[in-house]
Amino acid sequence: MHKPLLTPVRKLVIVGVGLIGGSFALSLKKAGLVQQVVGVGRSLTNLHTAQQLGVIDTISQNLVEAVQDADFILLATPVGQLPIILQQLNTHISDNCIVSDVGSTKSDVIDYAQKHFHAHLSQFIPAHPIAGAEKSGAEAAKSDLYQDKKVVLTPLAENSSSAVQKVQALWEACGASVHSMLAEQHDRVFAAVSHLPHVLSFALVAELANRHDGNLFFEYAASGFRDFTRIAGSHPEMWRDICMANREAILNELAAYQTQLSRLQTLLETENSDELQQLFSQASHARQTWKQHQ
Amino acid sequence: MHKPLLTPVRKLVIVGVGLIGGSFALSLKKAGLVQQVVGVGRSLTNLHTAQQLGVIDTISQNLVEAVQDADFILLATPVGQLPIILQQLNTHISDNCIVSDVGSTKSDVIDYAQKHFHAHLSQFIPAHPIAGAEKSGAEAAKSDLYQDKKVVLTPLAENSSSAVQKVQALWEACGASVHSMLAEQHDRVFAAVSHLPHVLSFALVAELANRHDGNLFFEYAASGFRDFTRIAGSHPEMWRDICMANREAILNELAAYQTQLSRLQTLLETENSDELQQLFSQASHARQTWKQHQ
Repeated sequence: MHKPLLTPVRKLVIVGVGLIGGSFALSLKKAGLVQQVVGVGRSLTNLHTAQQLGVIDTISQNLVEAVQDADFILLATPVGQLPIILQQLNTHISDNCIVSDVGSTKSDVIDYAQKHFHAHLSQFIPAHPIAGAEKSGAEAAKSDLYQDKKVVLTPLAENSSSAVQKVQALWEACGASVHSMLAEQHDRVFAAVSHLPHVLSFALVAELANRHDGNLFFEYAASGFRDFTRIAGSHPEMWRDICMANREAILNELAAYQTQLSRLQTLLETENSDELQQLFSQASHARQTWKQHQ
Repeated sequence: MHKPLLTPVRKLVIVGVGLIGGSFALSLKKAGLVQQVVGVGRSLTNLHTAQQLGVIDTISQNLVEAVQDADFILLATPVGQLPIILQQLNTHISDNCIVSDVGSTKSDVIDYAQKHFHAHLSQFIPAHPIAGAEKSGAEAAKSDLYQDKKVVLTPLAENSSSAVQKVQALWEACGASVHSMLAEQHDRVFAAVSHLPHVLSFALVAELANRHDGNLFFEYAASGFRDFTRIAGSHPEMWRDICMANREAILNELAAYQTQLSRLQTLLETENSDELQQLFSQASHARQTWKQHQ
């Protein structure tokens, strides 16, 4: 499905060779769209694993050296590391190298780029691949992770349109459908459909775990609880960073949700079973309609 | 794994031949522990399906006739129908017939039994099989639904111990592990690990569905949202009834959860990333530890 005449990437540098970065490399390799992949990261063990699994071809622990002659750099580290990485790249990349990221929040990443990557803003294309991230590390990478997934680009006014097209074409070659929106809109949407559910799930599990008789509750929890709390097993630091980065949008969503819970509380207190059923019916219908598109 | 010398049920009457009641019948048939199964229900279409699939042997739409000579009656209708059913049974069953139910809430069922089944309280063993109920109807029934699942009994002081043992043995023959607790404790535990998560999931989906731009949000919802909201696709009337039946325990859980959300809100507002991470870590650890037992 990738566009005709798409030129392969000559030298791809993946900074942070985990599930997301590693799967991008594997997908492009499978599509025959990359000649050389260099992995950069803090954990040498992880980089060696990545090399052994064929996710990357060579290893580097020196970012500045690694990006020499690179024509595409994917920043797939935790978002908190981007300022220092962008600062280094700002003085060490060539004008024809495209840089993109995979952050779950976009306004903060764009802030970082405007502050620390100002010399090359036309080359920095903010992106967010929507793919599960329960497993981590290079050994979790797979070439079909992005098949039929969405990737959201939040391009900057300064972006070169050919760079945006290139990023889009590469993600499409990975099997993804690519969408564009404003960073603010992206952050608002994902605060509602991803960040808030994570916060709510963490909240429920922590509340139960804190009880003196918490074990009794976990013992009888079943499949509904299992699915509702699956995302509570997510990476705590990563989600702390996402919450801090998208704090305001998440606070707005949390406030709307608390209003909804207060309404439910009133329905229960007043034994208003008609309106309770109406609310459940609306949710059930919306959920079942949505499921059909998955 | 069933106890030696367990006498088969001669005539089993299933009132409400859906996923739960039908699977009980199929499991006992497979274990060779039932001679005849009579299905009673409001939908003749569903009963015919049940008969064609071998879930039941004969059909009845007359409860009083059906229970003649029965030695085991499983009440697997929505809980709201129990008062009228118990009232009918109260004057029409023999002293050696055991009656049990499958309700998700137990205090209310026991209230009904005390009011409407007072002549036979020793024979009424309240039970709650913990098995997913997303699908419904006789065609969803399967003989291994209860394999490795839990069944909670909340026996009454009036119960005959041989009747309790019989119910336990039959559920064990279905592959379940059987636990006993007080009805009040049962309702408190399931308010926390089942009823509240359903309410929270319904609340999130209804809140999004009510937005004028709700479609935008559903469009970008992914696997985390999918799992968190799976239970929001549950049966609205059934969950309205559960909420009404276990109203007080659910209100207590909802209040505890709202306190937890307010705490999280404060952590976000004050950018207290350390405590936020601590809360997420506690949840993540508890969830991952729990998962290993599933």
